Amino acid sequence: MFGKCLENVKEKNPLVHCITNYVTVNGVANALLACGGSPVMADAIEEAADITAISDGLYINIGTLNQRTVEGMFAAGQAANDKKKLILLDPVGAGASRLRTKTALDLMEKLRIGILRGNISEIKAISGEIGKTKGVDADESDAVTEENLDFMTDFARKSAKALGVVLVITGKIDLVSDGDICYVIRNGCEMMKYVTGTGCMLSALSLAYGVSNPKNITEAVAASVCLMGLAGEKSHKNLKKTGGNMTFYSGIIDNIFNMTSGDLERGAKYEIR
Amino acid sequence: MFGKCLENVKEKNPLVHCITNYVTVNGVANALLACGGSPVMADAIEEAADITAISDGLYINIGTLNQRTVEGMFAAGQAANDKKKLILLDPVGAGASRLRTKTALDLMEKLRIGILRGNISEIKAISGEIGKTKGVDADESDAVTEENLDFMTDFARKSAKALGVVLVITGKIDLVSDGDICYVIRNGCEMMKYVTGTGCMLSALSLAYGVSNPKNITEAVAASVCLMGLAGEKSHKNLKKTGGNMTFYSGIIDNIFNMTSGDLERGAKYEIR
Amino acid sequence: MFGKCLENVKEKNPLVHCITNYVTVNGVANALLACGGSPVMADAIEEAADITAISDGLYINIGTLNQRTVEGMFAAGQAANDKKKLILLDPVGAGASRLRTKTALDLMEKLRIGILRGNISEIKAISGEIGKTKGVDADESDAVTEENLDFMTDFARKSAKALGVVLVITGKIDLVSDGDICYVIRNGCEMMKYVTGTGCMLSALSLAYGVSNPKNITEAVAASVCLMGLAGEKSHKNLKKTGGNMTFYSGIIDNIFNMTSGDLERGAKYEIR
Repeated sequence: MFGKCLENVKEKNPLVHCITNYVTVNGVANALLACGGSPVMADAIEEAADITAISDGLYINIGTLNQRTVEGMFAAGQAANDKKKLILLDPVGAGASRLRTKTALDLMEKLRIGILRGNISEIKAISGEIGKTKGVDADESDAVTEENLDFMTDFARKSAKALGVVLVITGKIDLVSDGDICYVIRNGCEMMKYVTGTGCMLSALSLAYGVSNPKNITEAVAASVCLMGLAGEKSHKNLKKTGGNMTFYSGIIDNIFNMTSGDLERGAKYEIR
Repeated sequence: MFGKCLENVKEKNPLVHCITNYVTVNGVANALLACGGSPVMADAIEEAADITAISDGLYINIGTLNQRTVEGMFAAGQAANDKKKLILLDPVGAGASRLRTKTALDLMEKLRIGILRGNISEIKAISGEIGKTKGVDADESDAVTEENLDFMTDFARKSAKALGVVLVITGKIDLVSDGDICYVIRNGCEMMKYVTGTGCMLSALSLAYGVSNPKNITEAVAASVCLMGLAGEKSHKNLKKTGGNMTFYSGIIDNIFNMTSGDLERGAKYEIR
Repeated sequence: MFGKCLENVKEKNPLVHCITNYVTVNGVANALLACGGSPVMADAIEEAADITAISDGLYINIGTLNQRTVEGMFAAGQAANDKKKLILLDPVGAGASRLRTKTALDLMEKLRIGILRGNISEIKAISGEIGKTKGVDADESDAVTEENLDFMTDFARKSAKALGVVLVITGKIDLVSDGDICYVIRNGCEMMKYVTGTGCMLSALSLAYGVSNPKNITEAVAASVCLMGLAGEKSHKNLKKTGGNMTFYSGIIDNIFNMTSGDLERGAKYEIR
């Protein structure tokens, strides 16, 4: 019932505390508003715990981390754990620098992370295999494909179980697993790789969906992944000949805003393995 | 003569020094350019005073404050006061964390702030009453409504006088008071709450209008509030069925850019109490 | 063969490490994706060198510098020099504050910068003459015009030689010189001054073009300058009556995305002096 998950977000209007990168933060804020949530950004250690305390969930994204903001992440994360609020970690670029890999691993170790979302390179860097990371984009050779799908769903399931998270691996095919079942999602379109921030926005949506559907977090996260991909498909379909990646980008958020529960139910392309 | 206020901004092309949050900073810069001003962003303590010195006004927004940028705010603020340049403070999230409330109060106490703009929760947090802040959005129960308008205009007037500022309280109904008169403004539309940064952008515009109309700052600020709301109305009117909150957002800035003095005069909906 | 330069970028898909300001960073990322490159932003000193090592070039922009990020710039720059990777410096606001001027000069002195791009005020501040900087916009009185073109091309050539860089001076007329030849470029349109970030985006493009065309960097940089101006012209031409500076801004990036080698060859307006 992905449609019901969507409606629950709009009804709850969850406040999401975001400690995220300055590249895509505006899109993250507008995507949260589009889906029915509310954003609040605060990374200073002096207030991180206070802001988490009034929020419904904590979104940590290490896209442009630095020593100061990493301290804020831990302070906010501790507060979230203390108050039993859901945390989503987006380990942007894990594997691309020692700082990112180490920070992601530290966050996984010292905090109770509920949802982990990344591309396959990032997830491999965390789950112990060595990812070949090209900046913040995944290496092609690691991609989830129809050919290696059995292997990859197995990898997702085992990693989710080992890490104790709802795991989201995004790429051409997206996987969502809680260690037990694994959603295989085929929404989205090629053009999404020409805009920055689709991953960051999806992470924020996944958390908003998770906190608004506490009894079925895995399903809600899968719904958010379908929502994001479907919004991309619709934006691409509406794109005129003069339109390019920026119009496409705005269109993704517009389509998140306009998406009804019926649209999502009809457009979601997934199977459970 | 709101139209004249608008023309004065375009003629003066004021340079506005902004120390603002990284979430909405791009919109702030483009909104300033749209209205006829020029932005310059600089938050390092080593240069804050230098940049203020070549600017026409200083815009301080505590949306993503941290210890380093707060020091920059005070350095810039001191320079602005020394050189008798107008300062606008936007106390984003005052009441939501002790850091924000304390910083806003400190800035009010140690600097001579000319214009203060916030939602009702933020203004209450500063004026001494305890606001119920939901992140950076105002709590519904505090909102200015037709029913409590007499009480709220009185509150605005008294707060403006007590704080020694031109006070702008924004919400469904906006109030602008200098402690003497109070503008009651009914421009804007419901959809503005689905985009991030309308408050931040308005603050920048209000300062640009204030510094370009030094003899009638209160009127100029009221003009900027009408301008922002009217740009929202026009953007909403132009929105096609496929459009969502991002197209609406771009449209707000587009309409600030295209707004003529005649448009503003015709579209401004306000009364003076 | 500007068209060939464009194709080489799309084929190489260069990864560009950007240490840039938080005002226009999203546009920089999307413009890089639009032209066929990939962005990675990382400014922490702990990882700057690691990220540079996996990148094809380093873009340093001092638009919202602070002590922490300046350290990151030097660390990344040193790594780039060690590994013989191209660096582009955009000295935003050099001349506007002592910190900016000093930082730009230090970067020029301590690093081997390959490409330097700024407006005339910024370049003059670096090349030793005293620029009259209005925030981050160039002073009108310094502008490159048809009247002073001989003098200015000579200035560009001499400065490029003295500084040991491919020099790009942008304004109504753009100049690109390697100390030997000087491209005089007349693409672009008036409206580009009403959006923030065209300079920052151009710098990122110029670097992507430079690293993708290592045997003819000067020509490639000139191609990127024509590309940016032409994208502005096309965006302006497509702008509807209700469109303003934000729609125009999106359109610039859209047109970079859609630009073919044939479009660039046909639309480039330049001469070599």
